[in-house]
Amino acid sequence: MPDQPTLAEVAAAAGVSPATASRVLTGSVRVRTSARVQVHAAMARLGYTPRGGGDRRQRRTVPVIAAVVCESTRRLFTDSFFARLITGAEESLARESVPLLVLPTSPTTLAATERFLVSGGVDGVLLISAHKQHPLAAAVSAAGVPVRCAGRPADDLPLPFVDADNRGGARRAVEHLMRTGRRTIATIAGPPDLSAAVDRLEGYRDGLEDSAMQAPPVAYGDFTQASGSHAMGWLLHRVPNLDAVFVASDLMAVGAIHTLRRAGRRVPEDVAVIGFDDAPAARYVTPALTTVRQPVENLGAVASELLLGEVLDGRTGSHNPVLPTELVIRQSA
Amino acid sequence: MPDQPTLAEVAAAAGVSPATASRVLTGSVRVRTSARVQVHAAMARLGYTPRGGGDRRQRRTVPVIAAVVCESTRRLFTDSFFARLITGAEESLARESVPLLVLPTSPTTLAATERFLVSGGVDGVLLISAHKQHPLAAAVSAAGVPVRCAGRPADDLPLPFVDADNRGGARRAVEHLMRTGRRTIATIAGPPDLSAAVDRLEGYRDGLEDSAMQAPPVAYGDFTQASGSHAMGWLLHRVPNLDAVFVASDLMAVGAIHTLRRAGRRVPEDVAVIGFDDAPAARYVTPALTTVRQPVENLGAVASELLLGEVLDGRTGSHNPVLPTELVIRQSA
Repeated sequence: MPDQPTLAEVAAAAGVSPATASRVLTGSVRVRTSARVQVHAAMARLGYTPRGGGDRRQRRTVPVIAAVVCESTRRLFTDSFFARLITGAEESLARESVPLLVLPTSPTTLAATERFLVSGGVDGVLLISAHKQHPLAAAVSAAGVPVRCAGRPADDLPLPFVDADNRGGARRAVEHLMRTGRRTIATIAGPPDLSAAVDRLEGYRDGLEDSAMQAPPVAYGDFTQASGSHAMGWLLHRVPNLDAVFVASDLMAVGAIHTLRRAGRRVPEDVAVIGFDDAPAARYVTPALTTVRQPVENLGAVASELLLGEVLDGRTGSHNPVLPTELVIRQSA
Repeated sequence: MPDQPTLAEVAAAAGVSPATASRVLTGSVRVRTSARVQVHAAMARLGYTPRGGGDRRQRRTVPVIAAVVCESTRRLFTDSFFARLITGAEESLARESVPLLVLPTSPTTLAATERFLVSGGVDGVLLISAHKQHPLAAAVSAAGVPVRCAGRPADDLPLPFVDADNRGGARRAVEHLMRTGRRTIATIAGPPDLSAAVDRLEGYRDGLEDSAMQAPPVAYGDFTQASGSHAMGWLLHRVPNLDAVFVASDLMAVGAIHTLRRAGRRVPEDVAVIGFDDAPAARYVTPALTTVRQPVENLGAVASELLLGEVLDGRTGSHNPVLPTELVIRQSA
């Protein structure tokens, strides 16, 4: 390795005191912008790299966390679930001056993203929407990068997580439908390779368990509005006498309501609809959507706080909190 | 530096061929997930770091680009401008297998973000919404990190950019209002520390230039819907006889229309409204918004392609494209 310039030489070249140069390196906010610029310009000119050896992670005094979203950029920006989760995480980390990178993934960028993450590109990974057997989930944790999943990981990967009580929330939704006299309660489930979808389907079945009701066939969507529309059409064809539907996300429920309206079914008079999330759309749709509220912002905040603790202390916590959900009754059921 | 294990030793420990281990390191997609996981696990176990010395950038065979958004996470997710711009950039980069990190900024994380960016955390920076004298704009370019601004940088920083024809678009909007007989054309401008806002205000003044019309006082907003509502209220108070308003963003125009309705003014009969962006909201508001369309997705795609060229070739282009804008006439004017 060639001779490195010293920090004192960088400071001299930048025309600032060594203490100021050091504060720039440690990421202190107590440095004027002009001094920061001069120090970085001098570092670049002299080829200075901070000490710390091979692992970039060890060189940073303030860690950097990545929210890795196992979905496309389009979904990241069209499903408010991600905005709420990431905003919750970002605002919580910002209180500790820790930046949050957001990393959507696509099939073509998966390999390079994995390389970036496992080679010390960031200090911790908040893993969001990791479908079953998602390559990043296994690779990141195998490489020893601290990771915390927002939502229980699929296929029982031994990764720490924070989850919402998806199963209990779904059960309470179905119990409400039965209590209000519904007789044929169908469901539109989410993708079966996501634990949140699996748990909501289990909760739906829990809710029907004590009744004599025969569960109708399950329709599946991918949590998008279009898939909810389509699944509702399929249900109306297969179960024409249904009088209620529990839908595993609000966006899919909005799609289902549109299909019901086009089919001439009144909501809630003919068919009661309950969603899941309490997304902004739940209040804007007509009729306003009865739904299961999950504390999405809080999920992001708690997951990022636990992750940051793991990054700073180097220990993986064994506590996996499950946050409560609640039924919010509006007009649709 | 302690003795490094060789790549062959990593391959042996992972139970794969050296060629496979090498493909994992170069980010090739032609590797089974299980093999990738084994190689990364072996690298972590043996403490292997890829060759390349101090600068992480030189070690990556596939570069990593960051879209740095000089706005909060909340704005990132509530103004569709950012979603469109980032989606355009991400999809364009994904075709080259290059991942895009998204980095919103907040005052408390600015110093750590700057450290991450200038110390080789990424290979190039797509700088979005850099307000005047934004510390990151100066620091990143001084540190020699390739950078391309989406939108001309404020205060004439000599950074390469891609821009939309904001000034020409605004001028055509005002000319349309004059052609359709409007006599008192006010404007709601954007933040004066963003070049797009300054250029749209200049275009508004260009449009009035050839007329005998006295320009009313300018109202300013910050591109949010709430600020448009408020600015419209201020204008109605200061210029009660106005019969048209050119608003520098669609979200602000939606806010302005709400205020006009509450004040009992009909749009467009009493007051014509033209926005800027052609955001999705422009089609959903009542009446549908006449607006200046800017090719936001394309702006992101072109900026990221030029940036990637600079990252790969090491040369900074001197060409700063300005993409055309067009007037889209709907109901509001």
